Amino acid sequence: MKAKYTLFTPGPTHVPEDIMQELSKPLVYHREAAFTEILNESIKGLKKVFRTKGDVFIFTSSGTGAMEAAVANLLSFGDHAIVAVCGKFGERWRELVLRFGGYADMLSIPFGRSVPPEELERKIKANDAARFVFTTLTETSTGALNDIKSFGKLCRANNRILVVDAIAGLGADELHTDDWQVDVVCGASQKALYCPPGLSFMSFNDRAWECSEKSKAPRYYWDVRQFRKWMQDKGQTPWTPAIPLFYALNRALGQVLEAGMDETWARHRRLAEYLRKRVADAGLELFTEHPSNALTVIKMPEGVDGSAIVQTVKERDKMLLANGQAEMFRKVVRIGHMGALTKTDIGKAFDAFLHAFKEQPGPRGQP
Amino acid sequence: MKAKYTLFTPGPTHVPEDIMQELSKPLVYHREAAFTEILNESIKGLKKVFRTKGDVFIFTSSGTGAMEAAVANLLSFGDHAIVAVCGKFGERWRELVLRFGGYADMLSIPFGRSVPPEELERKIKANDAARFVFTTLTETSTGALNDIKSFGKLCRANNRILVVDAIAGLGADELHTDDWQVDVVCGASQKALYCPPGLSFMSFNDRAWECSEKSKAPRYYWDVRQFRKWMQDKGQTPWTPAIPLFYALNRALGQVLEAGMDETWARHRRLAEYLRKRVADAGLELFTEHPSNALTVIKMPEGVDGSAIVQTVKERDKMLLANGQAEMFRKVVRIGHMGALTKTDIGKAFDAFLHAFKEQPGPRGQP
Repeated sequence: MKAKYTLFTPGPTHVPEDIMQELSKPLVYHREAAFTEILNESIKGLKKVFRTKGDVFIFTSSGTGAMEAAVANLLSFGDHAIVAVCGKFGERWRELVLRFGGYADMLSIPFGRSVPPEELERKIKANDAARFVFTTLTETSTGALNDIKSFGKLCRANNRILVVDAIAGLGADELHTDDWQVDVVCGASQKALYCPPGLSFMSFNDRAWECSEKSKAPRYYWDVRQFRKWMQDKGQTPWTPAIPLFYALNRALGQVLEAGMDETWARHRRLAEYLRKRVADAGLELFTEHPSNALTVIKMPEGVDGSAIVQTVKERDKMLLANGQAEMFRKVVRIGHMGALTKTDIGKAFDAFLHAFKEQPGPRGQP
Repeated sequence: MKAKYTLFTPGPTHVPEDIMQELSKPLVYHREAAFTEILNESIKGLKKVFRTKGDVFIFTSSGTGAMEAAVANLLSFGDHAIVAVCGKFGERWRELVLRFGGYADMLSIPFGRSVPPEELERKIKANDAARFVFTTLTETSTGALNDIKSFGKLCRANNRILVVDAIAGLGADELHTDDWQVDVVCGASQKALYCPPGLSFMSFNDRAWECSEKSKAPRYYWDVRQFRKWMQDKGQTPWTPAIPLFYALNRALGQVLEAGMDETWARHRRLAEYLRKRVADAGLELFTEHPSNALTVIKMPEGVDGSAIVQTVKERDKMLLANGQAEMFRKVVRIGHMGALTKTDIGKAFDAFLHAFKEQPGPRGQP
């Protein structure tokens, strides 16, 4: 069946046909050796993607589920956390911390920028009570990339637990969970790992386990202690998993790991650099100071409605770019290049964007 | 691709090929009108399945996720709840209530029986503090069916909120959410609605909403207020949904609703009655006093190891029956007949069971 459009959205992303076909394979029973094999393969592959020797858990949920899992497994009522935010998905950490009864000490910066490590350091030094730092690798709303390596050093030196939402970045932007001293990383299936949505991931190291033993937040579905016990005792998940999505995940991981993470990151970087050059050549500006390699967020000149461009490209070219979110709805256009897209795909998407951009009325245009 | 075996497990269940094929259809973007249409169709269909005019929410999770959603959206720390339990999945309500800081007043009965309404009445009368009653429609571990209609009358008359885990029963055993005065019902995709696992459902009526406004349990991923707001404002889910599973769900719901719920329940009843007759004709006994129409749980005579039969049938006949759970591992064999299975399928499964049963050593056998 033909797609309505090619996805250049920053999740779900374009999923190659062979991976989509995995979904329709006959179901195995999840309380059976056949599923244990599949689960083991997924976890083994994800550990390579995360670059961790710690635990990795797979939840049947969206990426937000893994974020809730991180908070619910670490925090107790009344705990303090620093939340370093550079966009909408960073804000989600704040909401989660507050919902679980924590205090969120916010380090907020103008959207489009990345969190300066020295600002995080200042925040950490000023807040002895905060045991946790929540932040984002790749902020999908703005395209900003954070310097997680520096954050990791800072957090370890100051004995804080670092929790990173890498949902959009995982696979696209370099991330060395263990080497960079990140304690908990959240990811999801439908981004740079080019799977359909429905699975989320969380890495969890020994420092996180230590916190988790003390955590008093209510948790059951997300409880890593349950996941560990079931994994150790039976090689199974405690709850019924979304079996077809595991088939797709394993096939995608096989392809990603055949190339290797270094090459996968390099491939995303080449795509991103190519698109950023096209943007500059067209006389346009990025919205983002330190851009991620997962997506490119293009600033619309004053008076140009980005959402009209997205609409035109969708109808005329059958490609789906993404609008800005909330207050940035018309002000930016986002083009995802995470996952299985090629330079040719990205080139076509930008051609289509530029065609529609030049047709826009208003004081813009002729670059 | 050929299946390893036909599933007679009580979830995941056998999914017809045309529904499995839906999973591989090209992804739409969930922030797009195309997905809103799909979501509306799912919810409209589920309301007919649940027989409710109240709200129905769809989560990307297993059925346990919907159970956690019920607890997290209703309870506050220190709340009291009656938990009427007749098996392993009833016990799950207790764990959830405790994890969320509630007090669980347990009505536990011997496994294999159903909760007598008069016992529930006695419990309710004895516990003024408990605003909630948590129970199970179809207890998958024992095959027991509860008299939810009577529970509904009792709860309404005594101003309690009735929350029913109908995960295994939904679609197989009669359930009239509104007419039976059930306030919250949990369901899942991979049972009698013959979809793959990965989606869960929760109905939520006005009385539940009233409780929910007062509830102080931490919640974010499961928060029905978020789901309602996103649905009203945009016709979308707040978090990225498992899009392929919605395709499958809609196709399955189309088939279920074409037959209609009355006929769907009747079809399950006919399958169950046929299998129960076969069991009796073989001189065997049910484990269950008031059996559900979703699955049949056969008691093994003293000395017969049910798990060996399940193993033989799997290897020889390529059909997967289910063992008992935990302490019932060898003592029962469970045969699911929920979903898309036919009388012919069930007949073959029982033939295979009987063949293996008769080969078992020990003081059993010749019926």
